[in-house]
Amino acid sequence: MLNGNFKSYMGDCRLEIDRLLESYLPGPTCEPALIHEAIRYSLFAGGKRIRPILCLASAEAVGGRREAVLPFAAAIELLHTYSLVHDDLPAMDNDTYRRGKLTNHKMFGESTAILAGDALLTAAFTMIAEKGLAGAIAPKKILKVILELGSASGSTGMVGGQLNDIESQGKEGLFLEKLMDIHTHKTGVLIRAAVRIGGILGGAGPKKLSLLTAFGEKAGLAFQIADDILDVEGKEETLGKSVGQDRKRGKWTYPGLVGLSRAKKEAAVLTEEALDALKSFGPEAEPLRQIAHYITHREK
Amino acid sequence: MLNGNFKSYMGDCRLEIDRLLESYLPGPTCEPALIHEAIRYSLFAGGKRIRPILCLASAEAVGGRREAVLPFAAAIELLHTYSLVHDDLPAMDNDTYRRGKLTNHKMFGESTAILAGDALLTAAFTMIAEKGLAGAIAPKKILKVILELGSASGSTGMVGGQLNDIESQGKEGLFLEKLMDIHTHKTGVLIRAAVRIGGILGGAGPKKLSLLTAFGEKAGLAFQIADDILDVEGKEETLGKSVGQDRKRGKWTYPGLVGLSRAKKEAAVLTEEALDALKSFGPEAEPLRQIAHYITHREK
Repeated sequence: MLNGNFKSYMGDCRLEIDRLLESYLPGPTCEPALIHEAIRYSLFAGGKRIRPILCLASAEAVGGRREAVLPFAAAIELLHTYSLVHDDLPAMDNDTYRRGKLTNHKMFGESTAILAGDALLTAAFTMIAEKGLAGAIAPKKILKVILELGSASGSTGMVGGQLNDIESQGKEGLFLEKLMDIHTHKTGVLIRAAVRIGGILGGAGPKKLSLLTAFGEKAGLAFQIADDILDVEGKEETLGKSVGQDRKRGKWTYPGLVGLSRAKKEAAVLTEEALDALKSFGPEAEPLRQIAHYITHREK
Repeated sequence: MLNGNFKSYMGDCRLEIDRLLESYLPGPTCEPALIHEAIRYSLFAGGKRIRPILCLASAEAVGGRREAVLPFAAAIELLHTYSLVHDDLPAMDNDTYRRGKLTNHKMFGESTAILAGDALLTAAFTMIAEKGLAGAIAPKKILKVILELGSASGSTGMVGGQLNDIESQGKEGLFLEKLMDIHTHKTGVLIRAAVRIGGILGGAGPKKLSLLTAFGEKAGLAFQIADDILDVEGKEETLGKSVGQDRKRGKWTYPGLVGLSRAKKEAAVLTEEALDALKSFGPEAEPLRQIAHYITHREK
């Protein structure tokens, strides 16, 4: 249910997610302290928590209870944070800032950053299994969640997308089709998985799950195009990172290929298509609809 | 059951594990081809498959069926291979050879090696969930396996051990206690987890599981001491890597701290203690006992 207004819904979700992650992870003084400090540094760096919030809103859209889904939604953020830490590494995108702070490897060194990413990825699956064993949801459903998340993030999902992204940098003559493929795998799959996981845990039947999947796919693409647009148009102080980075490193982006105005139109069309998929859903899908709007209208 | 003799038992297990991994993983031409080539390069590089074999033998020791446990044992090897690929990275141990072949990053470049490790780690959990959903073992048990593996390999397990190992390199005045702690976390926990997972899936009660745990702990430590000894005494052509590397990079080792002769004695004592834990087990624990011997008497 939409809790007061959308802004407070997002805020409430964010608070619940952060509180749970805070209590689940070993404290910053737990041995080896350095790894736990590095993990917390990136995890609590002010992320928007879009993926777990999508997961919660998706569960609510099919009548699921937010509290029951929370631990699994939070685990998605662990996995997302691992991907950011590894993508920023010198051998990958070689980024210095992320969300206005030094990247993990700039702060803690490369070996610690690699290990912090590894630990975050591992913790995502561990948390799902542990919370699954302690909760009331059928273990079989929890296994489906793990399979969903693993498939989305493995060699044919996120990891494959990141590889293609790096391989394509500085290359000539990239086609729009290939760029959409990279986007789909690098960002889209995890957003799609977050929405599907919410649906599965919320108790969606096959029909509703396939509608949620369509929503997740469109919303995921819109999210990435919006990201590319922000890299051209966004304010550095709001984004917490230098703009124009994509262009500087010869990265292919949607606005770079089709121009800013068509990119904006595409994002708007994708948002409409995402919303269309939810047409048969009632008011309980309102938060999910609001997130689709937020995705293309955010400023960071 | 000991199948003919121990050598053929090991050979049979290895074959079954490799066949399953071969058929489970995306083929080397599956897109993106580079990541799948890199994954297969390290996974099929002639590893001994000690951890999955320990898992299978542990399941058999409590009356479990090898076929039923096989997919979960094989998944442990995916996780082990990820740890090798990441440990070899320039920012970590910076190794050039592993098992007589160039390390993954020397062969495919650093970014691909990081991603191949990430994909292997992800695939381990994905494979367990997928095979768990398709098999006959209770989903709750499968979740326990995931929790076991995740705890062993996360920030307070393997990842923590690797961090401590890197941090301690070149430092003066390391105590034996600290070294044992690093060993326990870097190698011991995964061997212990492999044995426990076999026990859980094989249907061990609390008593037998705690005996298997004791076995796994002792065998894990013996394994790491034997590894350190091989780095001093082993033949390069048998090991497939340069010997004396530990000393060269200022790495602390067991023989380095207490001398070769006491190190050998310690390994023998640990093996005896591991075997003691299995005293109440019948002939079905014979493969497990043989592996304990093999661990300290292997030549690579």
